[in-house]
Amino acid sequence: MRLKRKDILTIEDLGRDEIELILSTAESFKEVSDREIKKVPTLRGRTIINLFYEASTRTRTSFEIAAKRMSADAINISASSSSAVKGETLKDTAKNLEAMSPDCIVLRHPSSGTPQILSRLLRCSVINAGDGTHEHPSQALLDLLTVKQRLGKIQGLKIAIIGDILHSRVARSNIYGFAKLGAEVNIAGPPTMMPCEIEKTGCRAFNRIEDAIKDADVIMMLRIQLERQKTGLFPTAREYSQLFGLDSKKLEYAKKNVVILHPGPVNRGIEISSDVADGKYSLILEQVKNGVAVRMALFYLLMGGARE
Amino acid sequence: MRLKRKDILTIEDLGRDEIELILSTAESFKEVSDREIKKVPTLRGRTIINLFYEASTRTRTSFEIAAKRMSADAINISASSSSAVKGETLKDTAKNLEAMSPDCIVLRHPSSGTPQILSRLLRCSVINAGDGTHEHPSQALLDLLTVKQRLGKIQGLKIAIIGDILHSRVARSNIYGFAKLGAEVNIAGPPTMMPCEIEKTGCRAFNRIEDAIKDADVIMMLRIQLERQKTGLFPTAREYSQLFGLDSKKLEYAKKNVVILHPGPVNRGIEISSDVADGKYSLILEQVKNGVAVRMALFYLLMGGARE
Amino acid sequence: MRLKRKDILTIEDLGRDEIELILSTAESFKEVSDREIKKVPTLRGRTIINLFYEASTRTRTSFEIAAKRMSADAINISASSSSAVKGETLKDTAKNLEAMSPDCIVLRHPSSGTPQILSRLLRCSVINAGDGTHEHPSQALLDLLTVKQRLGKIQGLKIAIIGDILHSRVARSNIYGFAKLGAEVNIAGPPTMMPCEIEKTGCRAFNRIEDAIKDADVIMMLRIQLERQKTGLFPTAREYSQLFGLDSKKLEYAKKNVVILHPGPVNRGIEISSDVADGKYSLILEQVKNGVAVRMALFYLLMGGARE
Repeated sequence: MRLKRKDILTIEDLGRDEIELILSTAESFKEVSDREIKKVPTLRGRTIINLFYEASTRTRTSFEIAAKRMSADAINISASSSSAVKGETLKDTAKNLEAMSPDCIVLRHPSSGTPQILSRLLRCSVINAGDGTHEHPSQALLDLLTVKQRLGKIQGLKIAIIGDILHSRVARSNIYGFAKLGAEVNIAGPPTMMPCEIEKTGCRAFNRIEDAIKDADVIMMLRIQLERQKTGLFPTAREYSQLFGLDSKKLEYAKKNVVILHPGPVNRGIEISSDVADGKYSLILEQVKNGVAVRMALFYLLMGGARE
Repeated sequence: MRLKRKDILTIEDLGRDEIELILSTAESFKEVSDREIKKVPTLRGRTIINLFYEASTRTRTSFEIAAKRMSADAINISASSSSAVKGETLKDTAKNLEAMSPDCIVLRHPSSGTPQILSRLLRCSVINAGDGTHEHPSQALLDLLTVKQRLGKIQGLKIAIIGDILHSRVARSNIYGFAKLGAEVNIAGPPTMMPCEIEKTGCRAFNRIEDAIKDADVIMMLRIQLERQKTGLFPTAREYSQLFGLDSKKLEYAKKNVVILHPGPVNRGIEISSDVADGKYSLILEQVKNGVAVRMALFYLLMGGARE
Repeated sequence: MRLKRKDILTIEDLGRDEIELILSTAESFKEVSDREIKKVPTLRGRTIINLFYEASTRTRTSFEIAAKRMSADAINISASSSSAVKGETLKDTAKNLEAMSPDCIVLRHPSSGTPQILSRLLRCSVINAGDGTHEHPSQALLDLLTVKQRLGKIQGLKIAIIGDILHSRVARSNIYGFAKLGAEVNIAGPPTMMPCEIEKTGCRAFNRIEDAIKDADVIMMLRIQLERQKTGLFPTAREYSQLFGLDSKKLEYAKKNVVILHPGPVNRGIEISSDVADGKYSLILEQVKNGVAVRMALFYLLMGGARE
C-alpha cells in the first residue's frame, strides 16, 4: 500500500484516512525494533537524504535509524558543512541533490514553508522534519500513535497543549492532527506565546494551565526555549515554571489516567517537574520509540510497494 | 576490468585510453541510479573513507552515494572533527587510517599535491577529490562524460573555460582532459586570474570572454569565489559579471547548440545569469547526475574485479 | 560465546579470563580485515550508536569500521550537533537514544564515570570509549593484543609506561590490564604528572625514564597534551622531550627486542622521536590495526550469538 501523495509536508493537508493508514502502518513496523535482527529488506537500494539546516540529535537519529531498519541507504547533510555557506540557494542545493537520484529528502529548516517549496521543485519525496514555526508532521504522528496505543482511541478525547503555542511547530501539527481524529484541543500559555485567532482551528484557548488541563485525557507540554527569554516573551524561567509548568499538584486537575507527552528535549523543572516527567503518566520515552516506527511507516508508504 | 594504477590523482597523468575506459564504465553504471533498487553488490565488504579537509556538500555526498550504490561501506571524516586539530601530521593520519584496512581513501585537501603524497605512502587506493588549486579529476571526468553524451564525441570540439583559471583545480583538470581527448580549449578571465605560460598546455588564452566563446561547442563557467574580492583579484562582483559573466546576449557568440557547464555551486547573476543557468543549453544538473556514475566507475575500476 | 556482562566500562572490573576471551576472539576477527570482502554477517540488524562528546578521528572511525565489518548499522552522534547544546541532561539523552532500541552505545565523554552512569540507566550495552581521566578499556585491550601477538605472552613481561600518568585514561586501563595478565608495570613522568599512591595498583613509580625502561620488554609512551603546558604541569615541550621523550639513545636501556607502543596521535619530537616512532621496534600502526579487531570482538561478545 502506498499513500497517494509523494510528500509529507504538513498534518494540515493530510486526510483522516491518510493519518489512520500511517498510524496502522507504524503499529505494524513497531515490532521490528523489538527483534534481535532489527531490519527488514523492504527499502533496499533506496537513497534517503537527511538535509538538516538546524541542529538536531533525536529527530535526525530517528530518521536515520528508521531508514537503516528499512535497509535504505541514509546520507546525512548538515547545514554547517553544506554549500549553504557558499551562498547557494536552497533551490539549487535541492536540485543538485535530486540529480543524484535520492528517493526521499528529509528536510529540517528554520524557515517556515521551505518543505513546500522543495516539494514543488523535486520529483523525489520530501518529508518535513520541522520547518520554522510551521509544522513538524512526523512528531504529531508519533504523538497520535502514542495516545492511540495507550488510550485505545483519539476520537472524543480532551487534549491540552501547554506552552509557547505561537512559535511551536509541534503544537501546530498536533492541533491539526488531534482535531482531524475527533479530539477536542485546549491550549494555554503566556499571552505573548498565544497565537491570534487560534479558535479558527477549532481549539479553545485558555489563560491558565489549570483551566486548559481540567479533565484532560492528554497533556502535551511544549519545550520552552530559554533563549526566547531575552526577547521579552517571558520574564523569568521561575515565573514561567510557577504559572505554566506541570507539576504533580497541577496534575490533579486532569483525568485520573491522564497521558503526559513532551516532544523533548525536556527542561526539567521548567515546563515540567522531574517527578511528573519520570512518573507513571509520562509517555515521553514511548513517544521516542514510536518516532522510529512512524518514520519507518512514512518511508514505506512513500517509497515502498509498487510504483503507481 | 581494472585500471592498471592504484590511484586517481590527476587527469594530467591519465592516458587517453584510461580516460575512455572510465567514461565508458561510468556510462554503464549510470542506469543503476535510475532503477528502483539503486544498488549493485559489486563492492560489498570494501571500505571507502571520505577524508575531507575542506567543507563540501556535493562532492562528499556524490562519493558517499556512489560508494553505497556499489554496496561498499563509506566512512566520512571531516577535518574539523579530526586529529588534525590535535597537531597530527597528514602522513600520520593517513598511515593510521590505512592500518584500519580501507580499500580506498577519497581525499579533499586545501594544499595542492597532498593526494600524491598519500598515494606514495599508502598501499590502498587514493582518489583526489580536489587538492588546493591543482586538480579535481573526478570533476573533469564527469564534465567529459556530460559533453560526450550530449554531443556524441569530444574530438575536434571547441571548449571555452571562463573565469578564475589561475586558482581553479576544475579548470586545470578540464584543460588536460579535453586536450587529451582531442578538443581545442580556449580560456578567458581577468588578467589577475590568468595563469602564466598557460599556452604550454596547448590551450589558447583570451582577454575577452566574447573571443574565447566564439563558435564554442562547450562553455564551462567557473565559480567565482567572492572572498577573493578582498584580495584585490577583482574590483566588484558587478564589474566581474558585466565583463566575464555569461548571459543570453554573450551566448550568441557561441555555436547554436552550445553546451553550458558549471561545477557548482552557482553564484546566480555573477558568473552566469539565471536564465542561462536554467536554460536549454545548460547541463549543470546532468553534470551532477554523471558525477555519481563517474565515481561509481572509479571505485569499480580501482577496487572491483579480481586483484592483479 | 558471549561475555556474561552487558557492558565494557573498565579494565579494572574485567576478570583475567574475560580479557583472555576478548583477546582470543579479537585474534580470530583480525583476518576479516585482510580479506577482499571485509565483512561478516554476524551482527546484521544490530544498531550501534557512537555517542562522542569529545572529538576523535581514530577511535570513532575504528568503532564505526568495526561495526560495519560485523554488518551492524552504525549511527554517529557528536556532541557539537547533539541536544547537549539545548541543555538536556546526559541521562535524558541516553534514555531517549535507548528508546530507539540500539543494541549498544559507544560513549566517549570528558567526565570520568559517565559510562558507569549510563550502564546503570540503560538495558542496552555500553562500551566506554574513553571517559575523562578514568579508563579507555578498548585501547588497553588492543595494546595487550599487540604485545601478546609480538612477544607471545604477557605473563612475566616488564612494561614501562611513560608520561602524564595522572591524567591518562590510557595509562590507567593499561596498568590494570597488564597487571591482570601477570606483567610487571613501571611508570615514570614529571612529578606533576604522577598520581599519588599509585603503588597500590601494584606498579612501581620512577622519577627518571631511564630507570623505568631499564630492561623493559614493552615501552608505552603517552601522548603529551601540549595545552597542559599553560597549566604549569611542565615548563616547556623541549625540556619535557629531553627528560621524558623516547629517543634512540634512551632506548638502549630497554631489552634488545623491546616493543614500543603509543596510543596516538603522536607528537613527533616531543614524547617520541621520529626515528623511534617509525623504527623497527615500533608497533604503533599494528596497534591501530588491532583496534578494529578488538572492537569487532567486543561487539560480538556483547551482542552476538544467542541471548542468555
